[in-house]
Amino acid sequence: MKNVLLTISYDGTGFSGWQRQPGRRTVQGELERVLSVLCGQEIQINGTSRTDAGVHALGQRASFKGAFGIPVERMAQAANNLLAAGLGLGKTAVGDVRILEAREVDSEFHARFSSRGKRYVYRIRDSRQPDLFQRNYCYQVRRRLDEQAMALAAEHVVGEHDFRCFMAAGGKEMESTVRRIYGLDVRREGDELLLSVSGNGFLYNMVRIIAGTLTEVGMGRRRPEELKAIIERADRRYAGHTAPPQGLYLMEVFYEDQ
Amino acid sequence: MKNVLLTISYDGTGFSGWQRQPGRRTVQGELERVLSVLCGQEIQINGTSRTDAGVHALGQRASFKGAFGIPVERMAQAANNLLAAGLGLGKTAVGDVRILEAREVDSEFHARFSSRGKRYVYRIRDSRQPDLFQRNYCYQVRRRLDEQAMALAAEHVVGEHDFRCFMAAGGKEMESTVRRIYGLDVRREGDELLLSVSGNGFLYNMVRIIAGTLTEVGMGRRRPEELKAIIERADRRYAGHTAPPQGLYLMEVFYEDQ
Repeated sequence: MKNVLLTISYDGTGFSGWQRQPGRRTVQGELERVLSVLCGQEIQINGTSRTDAGVHALGQRASFKGAFGIPVERMAQAANNLLAAGLGLGKTAVGDVRILEAREVDSEFHARFSSRGKRYVYRIRDSRQPDLFQRNYCYQVRRRLDEQAMALAAEHVVGEHDFRCFMAAGGKEMESTVRRIYGLDVRREGDELLLSVSGNGFLYNMVRIIAGTLTEVGMGRRRPEELKAIIERADRRYAGHTAPPQGLYLMEVFYEDQ
Repeated sequence: MKNVLLTISYDGTGFSGWQRQPGRRTVQGELERVLSVLCGQEIQINGTSRTDAGVHALGQRASFKGAFGIPVERMAQAANNLLAAGLGLGKTAVGDVRILEAREVDSEFHARFSSRGKRYVYRIRDSRQPDLFQRNYCYQVRRRLDEQAMALAAEHVVGEHDFRCFMAAGGKEMESTVRRIYGLDVRREGDELLLSVSGNGFLYNMVRIIAGTLTEVGMGRRRPEELKAIIERADRRYAGHTAPPQGLYLMEVFYEDQ
């Protein structure tokens, strides 16, 4: 019995999110389909983050167990060829989901339960001129945002807090809504603001609600200090809007010995 | 009777090219559909370049005539709202085709026949690591290309020549296959090579065949000097492969008094 850890990248545009759903094209569904072919048995994978429709990943992780013939070191290439073929692309073409690495790990390892945290990036384009080539890849707000104010607001988010204010309805009932945010940086690159946020765990839609709230600060609709009160009130209604999925990227998953 | 000139940008990924075709989603078809609604009469537009499926544009042009009520200065915004609505997007969302400008021009003006030339960019990504977010937006060759050799080869292309060697079968029979290339620059930006080519006219697939031939030079499969002989032999079979459509961008169209 082998235990395999995958590192996965995908463009979320063409997927109904990560999680397998009958009759929908999902990242988990596509990966399980080709891995089941390669392994000659039904494979079910456990992803670290169940990203929503339209959300992208550069470093998603998933693990699965099985007794199968194919060497683990050949798995990524073989799966990528099958994934591209399923889209009618040639063998060397690139599809919209790709296994970057497959490697064997200890039998106790689990992609989600062994995770110590994650890092996401949220991309906001704040130019008056929309860029249609970016429509699926960032949040386009069409007015300049005040990144200094956003950076000040971000400071209130860092640390261990009850983040119930940033949890969308529709998420699972959690035992606890306390999480630790390790860092939340706001960086400008030309007409883009990149919010990079890392933490030990995230509530449902948490990064997108943080991004929406900081965007409102950047527009001058809220003062940076308000973030403190928003968190303390622990009520979703006082936080800002949920920024759209296409700006969100799962960058990396942290594990103990990596 | 007004004569209107449009400047148009589109992401070619979701289109079966520029030219109207029954039962297919094309750029011309989409634009004519919304313009006909706005103008209250059937509108037919003349595009400058009939780009193929997958080819992008930042500065396509098209003109059309008609007697209609809507002010020309309101046309772009109104059309863009309809175009986005047709995709089920909100009013302020950005679709994959967009009118950047609409303005009235002299009655003799014609977007194609009045054109003095065009500029295209062809994007090649020459990194070993493919980038799946770029799969529809450049040609990924997965090995480093020699841009100095490509720039040397490009010099042979500049000037007035019979470019029959760079014309794909399936194009219209031309009276003449002589064209003038004003410039062909090769520029590196990180893991990308940008070929910028301007000229007074282009044969069918000409830029893509030039890009494919220069790519073979960059791989060391052909010497830069071969370009001279390829052009002189005036036979498609001696030139290189046709680079794929997704790397090609129509950047701008030249007119006399602009």
